[in-house]
Amino acid sequence: MAQFIVIMKYKLFIDELAKRKKIVYDYLFSHRYASQFQSEHIRDSVYSYMKLGGKSLRPTVLLFACGAVGGDENIAIPAAAAVEVFHTWTLVHDDIIDRDETRRGSLTVHEAFRQRAIEEFGYPPEEAKHYGASIAMLAGDIQQGWAVSILTELTQNGVRPEIALYLIHDSEMRVLNMLIDGEVKDIQYSKVPVESLHEELILDMLWKKTGVLYEFSGKAGAMIGLNTDDPKHELVAAIANFTGKCGTAFQLQDDILGILGDEQTLGKPVGSDIREGKRTTIVYYSFKNANTAQREILLSVLGNQNAKKTDIQQAIELLSNLGGVEYTAKLAKSYIYDAVAYLDKIPDSQYKDLLGAWADYMIERTF
Amino acid sequence: MAQFIVIMKYKLFIDELAKRKKIVYDYLFSHRYASQFQSEHIRDSVYSYMKLGGKSLRPTVLLFACGAVGGDENIAIPAAAAVEVFHTWTLVHDDIIDRDETRRGSLTVHEAFRQRAIEEFGYPPEEAKHYGASIAMLAGDIQQGWAVSILTELTQNGVRPEIALYLIHDSEMRVLNMLIDGEVKDIQYSKVPVESLHEELILDMLWKKTGVLYEFSGKAGAMIGLNTDDPKHELVAAIANFTGKCGTAFQLQDDILGILGDEQTLGKPVGSDIREGKRTTIVYYSFKNANTAQREILLSVLGNQNAKKTDIQQAIELLSNLGGVEYTAKLAKSYIYDAVAYLDKIPDSQYKDLLGAWADYMIERTF
Repeated sequence: MAQFIVIMKYKLFIDELAKRKKIVYDYLFSHRYASQFQSEHIRDSVYSYMKLGGKSLRPTVLLFACGAVGGDENIAIPAAAAVEVFHTWTLVHDDIIDRDETRRGSLTVHEAFRQRAIEEFGYPPEEAKHYGASIAMLAGDIQQGWAVSILTELTQNGVRPEIALYLIHDSEMRVLNMLIDGEVKDIQYSKVPVESLHEELILDMLWKKTGVLYEFSGKAGAMIGLNTDDPKHELVAAIANFTGKCGTAFQLQDDILGILGDEQTLGKPVGSDIREGKRTTIVYYSFKNANTAQREILLSVLGNQNAKKTDIQQAIELLSNLGGVEYTAKLAKSYIYDAVAYLDKIPDSQYKDLLGAWADYMIERTF
Repeated sequence: MAQFIVIMKYKLFIDELAKRKKIVYDYLFSHRYASQFQSEHIRDSVYSYMKLGGKSLRPTVLLFACGAVGGDENIAIPAAAAVEVFHTWTLVHDDIIDRDETRRGSLTVHEAFRQRAIEEFGYPPEEAKHYGASIAMLAGDIQQGWAVSILTELTQNGVRPEIALYLIHDSEMRVLNMLIDGEVKDIQYSKVPVESLHEELILDMLWKKTGVLYEFSGKAGAMIGLNTDDPKHELVAAIANFTGKCGTAFQLQDDILGILGDEQTLGKPVGSDIREGKRTTIVYYSFKNANTAQREILLSVLGNQNAKKTDIQQAIELLSNLGGVEYTAKLAKSYIYDAVAYLDKIPDSQYKDLLGAWADYMIERTF
């Protein structure tokens, strides 16, 4: 029901989102790419998450950004496709690290190929697990290279080589390093006492894990739209700030859905963040407000890979009752509020309206 | 002693190799890169193998190739650094897949960080193992991005953007896909009956796993030296064919050293190829010549992770006595012979002589 309300409110936006998603995925499924992925297991694993389709929020905002600065969206399609592939490889590797078994309503890559190693090759359990993780790692490696090589194709659309080279360097050095620093912090924080963290540390982690790639998406679209290789151009900076802040808000909403979301709508297990012991602002805030007995309950479940469903449910209720979810929702809203202020610098247009709707959708989405 | 003879024979070449190695590693250790690798574990893991230093055969041949077509080696340094980093990330990920514990006389990345997770964080064994593999995977991801972003810097040396973009696309799409196809075949072949394979299948795997990146190194050096974006240029093609064939020979020699090499000189365990059940030409040829009793012995050791040292020793002796090693050494020589024929097209120069010495060294090296 909540999902239905969101869909109605964002009807126009969702139609425009769907159009971009189709364009980007048609581009990615073209034969000239598919024919490069040689062995069957690699081809299947590389396309696995793409066949199920993502939300396409990154490529879409890249195309909107291109249009909002007066550019032709069509020219930016390779860049949009590249950020979708970049995002996809980070999911594939992230899922290995988080030991998640489902994604987008289907098996994660490492889990799917663990099962295929048993079914197709008859590998014993440990070997099958190792094979699944190996194939997923290699599939992500291929996707990382794929994303980069798509960016080189921008020049075929008349984008200046300097811009393509800037975007390649920026994504593969600065963005990648921030993103992986966020990922490492995510892993390490999950094992340290909650009370030893600070909110700023968690927000910095979220910014790196998610905000930075959204920032890059906005920046890339604006630079291509303006045909400039100056990332400090006023419009480029405004849009990059806008999409970066929305990206962090997106992650805050993701953390909420990871606890309160509907498992079927989400396509991934609710509660796995709790099992992994993720240090979200929800956990941090709730823990601060918890009494000794409540802290003990939370500590017995957080990071406990073998926690029972009922334990997870009890932890979810506590995190909700102690105000962590509400606090995080407010935080997400304030990020969007700050983000939207940057749009003042962008001339009015239908694209600008779509950027505004995109921003709201980032935190109102239910999946 | 054998090592000493090789060093004396290749004195001039080894001096020139050492010079290039220093140039490339100085470039990679520059502060502007080191400062990008943010968290301590990532910085340490990214530089781990580089601190120990590789043989630098790929970057060196890239620089020789640049000189051999009349170019200025200095212009090609970023490309040489990039192939070294590219090679390094494939080692880091390969070591996770092969479950090797040592490399270059020290711990592999995943093993080092498994141990650090225990020492620094007190993680339990399974968590520590997972942490080690996660850090190694992320370190390789960063190195992959690093290699690409270094290639964008070629334009700062006056290399045409079209050439930089070509090399990025070629390495991150064609080379990467071939290389990973070789890796997947390596994994899959190790679990199928030896007699179900053919020599051509094994040689195709070696070509993809190793030859292709060597081919790319020669091609990149020649394209930069000639300042051409035409990979079919006669000199480019000649040098690419030359380095590619030598690369496959290098892998054949690697397989021999993996069985007969000296563990201390090699810096990695001898016999791990046998434990992983690698389908080398040595194994294939020896198996073909083995009688039933000998086959049974080989089968009980090949791919047996828990094989004892004495079992490994017995298998090594069999592989040697059955002629597999000798056959593989001859094969490697014939690859070098074919490769050197391509040098006829290259004008005479000191660089051409160095390419010849490099080719011989690829199969005479003892580590």
